[in-house]
Amino acid sequence: MKTKTSAYKRSGVNINLTTQIKSNIKSLVKKTFSRQVLSDIGLFGGLYEIPKSTKSRKRSAVLVSSCDGVGTKVLVANIMNKHNTVGEDLVNHCVNDILTLGAKPLFFLDYIAFSDIDSKVIEQVISGLANGCKRNNCALIGGETAMMPGMYKKGEYDLVGFIVGIVEKEKIINGKKIKIGDKLIGIPSSGLHTNGYSLARKVFFLDNKFTVNTKIPVFKQSLGETLLKTHQSYLKQVYPLLPYVSALAHITGGAFYKNIIRLLPTNLSCLIYKNKWQVPSIFKAIQKYGKISEAEMYSVFNMGIGMVLFVKPQNVKRVLSRIPQAKVIGEVTKGKKEIKII
Amino acid sequence: MKTKTSAYKRSGVNINLTTQIKSNIKSLVKKTFSRQVLSDIGLFGGLYEIPKSTKSRKRSAVLVSSCDGVGTKVLVANIMNKHNTVGEDLVNHCVNDILTLGAKPLFFLDYIAFSDIDSKVIEQVISGLANGCKRNNCALIGGETAMMPGMYKKGEYDLVGFIVGIVEKEKIINGKKIKIGDKLIGIPSSGLHTNGYSLARKVFFLDNKFTVNTKIPVFKQSLGETLLKTHQSYLKQVYPLLPYVSALAHITGGAFYKNIIRLLPTNLSCLIYKNKWQVPSIFKAIQKYGKISEAEMYSVFNMGIGMVLFVKPQNVKRVLSRIPQAKVIGEVTKGKKEIKII
Repeated sequence: MKTKTSAYKRSGVNINLTTQIKSNIKSLVKKTFSRQVLSDIGLFGGLYEIPKSTKSRKRSAVLVSSCDGVGTKVLVANIMNKHNTVGEDLVNHCVNDILTLGAKPLFFLDYIAFSDIDSKVIEQVISGLANGCKRNNCALIGGETAMMPGMYKKGEYDLVGFIVGIVEKEKIINGKKIKIGDKLIGIPSSGLHTNGYSLARKVFFLDNKFTVNTKIPVFKQSLGETLLKTHQSYLKQVYPLLPYVSALAHITGGAFYKNIIRLLPTNLSCLIYKNKWQVPSIFKAIQKYGKISEAEMYSVFNMGIGMVLFVKPQNVKRVLSRIPQAKVIGEVTKGKKEIKII
Repeated sequence: MKTKTSAYKRSGVNINLTTQIKSNIKSLVKKTFSRQVLSDIGLFGGLYEIPKSTKSRKRSAVLVSSCDGVGTKVLVANIMNKHNTVGEDLVNHCVNDILTLGAKPLFFLDYIAFSDIDSKVIEQVISGLANGCKRNNCALIGGETAMMPGMYKKGEYDLVGFIVGIVEKEKIINGKKIKIGDKLIGIPSSGLHTNGYSLARKVFFLDNKFTVNTKIPVFKQSLGETLLKTHQSYLKQVYPLLPYVSALAHITGGAFYKNIIRLLPTNLSCLIYKNKWQVPSIFKAIQKYGKISEAEMYSVFNMGIGMVLFVKPQNVKRVLSRIPQAKVIGEVTKGKKEIKII
C-alpha cells in the first residue's frame, strides 16, 4: 500500500513540509544537546537524565518549569521579515522566569503553529531558538511544528516555549527572604523585551501610520530594528550572585506592579525612584506618540529595567561591582504589598 | 502613582481579564496538585520536587517531556461551543506520548492564546485540562494565558500542552527491544483523537456543507459530538503492562506509517492486517464523503487504533487478558523499516 497525501494536502496540511523542516533543523538542534540528553530527534518525547550531582549529594532537587510566548512581537518580526531573533527572545524570557526562583535551565521545548508559511521562516525561528538554548546551556530537546489550516493568517505563526530547570530545595528563592531595607537593584533591559507589543504596534503602526523603516530622530536604528531588539538573558550575570540576593523579579507583562507585588509578603511595600535610571528612547517615543499617561507606561512596559534584584544593604556593593550597568532603583519599606513609583 | 490600563485596553489587551481568569481557575488547578508541587499559583514558574523514591534507590532517573497541540479540533470545539473536552484531549495526547517511552506523568503546563474571547470559554478549556490532569495523576503546575490582539479570529484560540514525566533509565522503552515475530496489539481509539481534523473539517463542512448537527445514519451521535469525542488516555491500562511490552506507538499525526516507522530498527518491517479490527464509522464516513483513497486514510487517520503495543508472542495472552478490547493486528517481520497494511 503506497501512501499519498493528496486529499490531506488539499485540506492545507502538508506532512512532507513539516518533515522537511524537521530534517533541516536537526543539526542546529543537536548542537544544543548536553550528555544528559538520551533521546535522538523524532521519538515521542525528549529524554533528559537528571544530573547525577543532584542525586549524589542527597539533597532534594526541585524542577522549575515555565511556559511563555513572545506575544505579538512575532507580528513585528513578520513585518520585518526577520525571524531569527524571536526564538532567542523566547528562550531568554523563559530562562529569566525560572532564574527568579533560583533555577538554572536543563531543557527547552518549542511549539510553532501556522497555517500557510514558507518553511524557511520556520527554520529561521528554530535557528534562533537553538542559538538561545546554546547560549543558556539548555538542551532544545523537543517541540511541535503544527500546521493548522484556517487558524492563522498566511505567513503568520505563533511561537511558544516551555522550559524546565533545576534548583536545590534549600536554595529556592520565593520572596520569603525579603526584608525591610532591602535595596532594589535594577538591571537594564535591551528594549521592550517581549512585552507591550500590542500597545506599541497600535501606537506606531495604527495610530501614527509609521512603518518599520521610519527613522525616529533619537533612535539609533529604524523603528522595526529597535522594536525587535532581543530580550536579554540575565542567567550568566545573575546566577553566580544568587547567594547574595533575597528575591528577583523579571519585569514582563504587568511590568513593575504585577511582577514585584507577587513576591512581596503582605506587610511590605516597595518604593521605586524613577530618577535613578534613564528611560530608553523607545519608551519615551511610545508615550509621546501614543499620548499615554506615565502611570500607564510603568504598568505596561519595563521602562528600561529588565530584572530587579532584592539585595540586603551589605551585599549591594558586591552585586553592583559584578553587574556594572545595574543601579539601585528603590527599596523595601513597611507597607501593604504596594508598589510606589515616585 | 495609580495604574490605569486604558490605552493598553484599547490596543486589545485586557490584563484584568487574564487576571480574572486566573483567579477563577485557581481552585480547579489546585485540585491537581500532588505533595511534590512546592509552588503556589502566580510565581514565575512551577516548582516540582523530584520524587524521593527515584533518588533513594540510586537508580538513574530520566525526565521525559513532550509538547503538543490538539490541531484544528479546537475549531470544531468552537463551532460546537463546547470547550470542556479539548483540554482533556490535550492532556491525554501528551500522556500517551511519554507513555510510549515508559514514563508516567509528573506535571503539565498549558498555553492558551486568543485575541478576543469570552473568559468563560477559557475557563471551560482549563477545567478540561484540570480534569485530564487529575485523571492521569499529573499536576497542572503552570501555564500561560496569552491575549494577542490581531493574531486570532474573534472567539478562536490555540491550545498547547507540555508534559514532563519520569522513567528509570533501565526502563526506557525506545524500540531497541523489537524483534522479528513480535505481535502488534492494537488498542481501540475513541475516534479521530487529535489528528486529521483539517481533512475531516474540509470533507464534512466545506465540501459536503454538513453542519455539526448533521445526523449521519450510522453515527450514534451528531457529527459534531462524534468529532469531539475525547482522545483516550492509555496510561492506566498500559503502564502496569510495560514490563511485557517491547515498544509502543501512539497513533497520531502520520498515523500507522510515521508512528511505527520511527520505532523500527533498519532491518525490520511490520505487517498490519486490516481485517483484524472494525474501522469505526467516522472514518468510513470521511472516506466516503471525501472520496479519499484507502491508502491515504491509513496514512492520515488512526482508523480505530489509538495505540499499538509490540509484544513477544509469549506475552500476548497476558496483555490481551488485561486489555480485553485490544486485538492482535499485525506482526514484526524481516524487512527494511517498512509498514505494509494488507
